[in-house]
Amino acid sequence: MATVGTDRTAVTVIGLGLMGRALAGAFAAAGHPTTVWNRTPGKAAELIASGVREARTAADAVSAGSLLIVCVRDYDAVREILAPVRGALSGRVLLNLTSGASDEARALAGWAGEHGAGYLDGAIMMTPPGIGAPDTVILYGGSPDLFAEHEQTLRVLGGGTTHLSADAGIPSLYDVALLGIMWGTFNSFMHSLALVGTENVAATEFLPFATSWLGGVASFMSTYAQQIDKGEYLAADATLETQLPPIGHLVHESHARGVDATIPEYTKALIEKSIAQGHALDSYARIIEHFRPAAR
Amino acid sequence: MATVGTDRTAVTVIGLGLMGRALAGAFAAAGHPTTVWNRTPGKAAELIASGVREARTAADAVSAGSLLIVCVRDYDAVREILAPVRGALSGRVLLNLTSGASDEARALAGWAGEHGAGYLDGAIMMTPPGIGAPDTVILYGGSPDLFAEHEQTLRVLGGGTTHLSADAGIPSLYDVALLGIMWGTFNSFMHSLALVGTENVAATEFLPFATSWLGGVASFMSTYAQQIDKGEYLAADATLETQLPPIGHLVHESHARGVDATIPEYTKALIEKSIAQGHALDSYARIIEHFRPAAR
Ligand SMILES: NC(=O)c1ccc[n+]([C@@H]2O[C@H](COP(=O)([O-])OP(=O)(O)OC[C@H]3O[C@@H](n4cnc5c(N)ncnc54)[C@H](OP(=O)(O)O)[C@@H]3O)[C@@H](O)[C@H]2O)c1
Ligand SMILES: NC(=O)c1ccc[n+]([C@@H]2O[C@H](COP(=O)([O-])OP(=O)(O)OC[C@H]3O[C@@H](n4cnc5c(N)ncnc54)[C@H](OP(=O)(O)O)[C@@H]3O)[C@@H](O)[C@H]2O)c1
Repeated sequence: MATVGTDRTAVTVIGLGLMGRALAGAFAAAGHPTTVWNRTPGKAAELIASGVREARTAADAVSAGSLLIVCVRDYDAVREILAPVRGALSGRVLLNLTSGASDEARALAGWAGEHGAGYLDGAIMMTPPGIGAPDTVILYGGSPDLFAEHEQTLRVLGGGTTHLSADAGIPSLYDVALLGIMWGTFNSFMHSLALVGTENVAATEFLPFATSWLGGVASFMSTYAQQIDKGEYLAADATLETQLPPIGHLVHESHARGVDATIPEYTKALIEKSIAQGHALDSYARIIEHFRPAAR
Repeated sequence: MATVGTDRTAVTVIGLGLMGRALAGAFAAAGHPTTVWNRTPGKAAELIASGVREARTAADAVSAGSLLIVCVRDYDAVREILAPVRGALSGRVLLNLTSGASDEARALAGWAGEHGAGYLDGAIMMTPPGIGAPDTVILYGGSPDLFAEHEQTLRVLGGGTTHLSADAGIPSLYDVALLGIMWGTFNSFMHSLALVGTENVAATEFLPFATSWLGGVASFMSTYAQQIDKGEYLAADATLETQLPPIGHLVHESHARGVDATIPEYTKALIEKSIAQGHALDSYARIIEHFRPAAR
C-alpha cells in the first residue's frame, strides 16, 4: 500500500498503543515513509506488512524522520522516551499527540526548544478508528509557520485539522473543555434516562426526543455566546426567574423517584444565586459569571 | 384574519400570559372560533383585533368551547380558576398546558374525570414566539382517543405534536427530563467558556467547536441508549478507565484557573465509583447505574 520514495515527508511515530498504530497506519496508507518505535516490541506486525519500518531503538526512530510524532500514555512517558535521545532532536519538529494538561504541553514545548527542536502540540478529538476520516477533528497549537509547513501531512490524520494558537497549551485546554461538555451532557442524559426509566420508558424511546432537543440547546448556546461576549444578558423569552419553577420540578421528580438530585440541585443553586444578585430578568447566559474566576 | 363559522373546533384559552396569548393567536389565525379569559382583564386587546372573543367570566369562557385549554402560572392557579366552574366541565375536554410535576398532572386528570371532563396534558417544549412553527414540539399525555379526536386542532400549535402516553403525567416528566439535559449542557458549556476565557478565547470563538462537538456527543448518546436497554456496556474504544486521565486534567485546569470545579469533580467521582465497582473496561453508559433508583 505504501509508496516508498515519494516526496512525502518522512514521519516517525513513537508509541504503538491503539492511537499510535492508527496514526502510523494512516501515514503509511497515504504514502509517507513511516518509521515506528514502541517501548514494548512486537506491536508493529500489521504496520510492517503495510510498509512501515520498525526502528530498533528510540534514537534510530528519531533520526529517521523530520517530523517526530509522540503519542503515548502521558507526559511522564514522553519524557522517559525523549530525555535519553535529546541530542538527536535538533533541527526536527516534535509533534506531541499525547493528552495532558496545558501547562505540561507548554513545558514540553520549552524543553524541545532548548534542544533545538520545533514544537507542535495536538489534541485528537476522536477515537482511533476515526483517524483519517474527513470529519475527524485534531486541534493544533504551536508555531503557525511549522503548522503551515506540515499541514498537508497532518491532514492525512483527519479533515478537521485546525490550528488554534501559537500557544502550545491551547489544544489541551480545548480538549478538556470539549470533553467537559460531553460529560456534562452525558450525565444529564443518564439522569433523565433514569427519571423516565422509573415509568418504564426505554432509553431508545427517549433518545430521539433528547437528540433533537440538543439541536435547540445548541441554538441557545449560540445566542448565549454572543451575549457573553457583549456582557449583555437580555432574555428574549426565557428569564432566569421563569426557570425557577421547572428546575424545582426537576429536583422534586428526582427526589420522588429516588434518582440522585445533585445535578439539578446544583443548577437550582446557580439560578437562585444569580437571581439573588439581582439578575432575575436576565437570560441563562448570566450564569457565566459564576464560573468566571474574577467573580469568585 | 379569523374565519368565523367554520367547522373548526371552538377553542377556549384561559390564561393570557405570554404563552396563553401565543396559543390563542395561533388558533384564531387558523380559523378556530376562539374565546379567551384572563384573571386580570385588559390583556386581550391584540387578540380581539384578530377576531378572538373575550369572555367576561371564567364560567362564560368554559361554556364557549368544547376544547378548554388552561395555561397559567402553576397548578394552584389552575385549581383556583377551575374549582368555582367545575359544574360546567362535564362533557368537555380539559387540556392543561400549564407546567408542573407529573403527580400534579395526574391529580388534575383525576379531578377532571370526577367532574365528567376528558383530560389531556401537554408540555410545550418551546418559547411563545415558536408557537405554530413546524418544528415546535408539544408532548401530550392522556386518553389516546381524545388526542386523536383533537390532533388536527392541536397541530395548529406546532408541527412536533406528539402523543406520548395514556398517562397524563408523562409529558411533565419528559419536560423536566429534557430541560435537565439542557441545563446540564448549558452549565458545562459555561464552565468550558470560563476555562478558555482565562486564555482570552471569546465565547463566539469557542462556540463552533462546542456545537459541532455536540453532534458527536449525540451519536454517543445513541450508542449508549442501545447499551442501556440491553444492559451491556461494551466499550468499543473509550473505556471508563481511559477517561480517568482526561477528567483529572479537567479538574486540574479548573483549579489552576480558579474556575468552579464542582461539575468535573462530580464526573470524576462517578467514573471512579464505577471503576471501583469493577467496571473499568465498560463504556460510559455504565454510569446509568448510579442514577437508577434500584442501585442506590
Ligand atoms: N484512544 C483514544 O481514543 C484517544 C483519543 C484521543 C487521544 N488519545 C491519547 O493518545 C495517547 C495514547 O493513547 P492510546 O489509546 O494509544 O493508549 P494505549 O493504547 O494505552 O497505549 C499507550 C502507549 O503508551 C506507551 N507507554 C506507556 N507508558 C510508557 C512509558 N513509561 N514509556 C514508554 N512508553 C510508554 C505504551 O507502550 P507499551 O506498549 O510499551 O506499554 C503504549 O504505546 C494518550 O495520551 C491518549 O490520551 C487517545
Ligand atoms: N413562556 C414560556 O417560554 C413557556 C414555555 C413552556 C411552558 N410555559 C408554561 O406556560 C404557563 C404560562 O406561562 P407564561 O409564560 O404565559 O407565564 P406568564 O406570562 O407569567 O403568565 C402567567 C399567567 O398565569 C396567570 N395567573 C397566575 N396566577 C394566577 C392565579 N392565581 N389565578 C389565575 N390566573 C393566574 C396570569 O394571570 P394575570 O395576568 O391575572 O396575572 C397569567 O395569565 C406556565 O406554566 C409556563 O411554565 C411557558
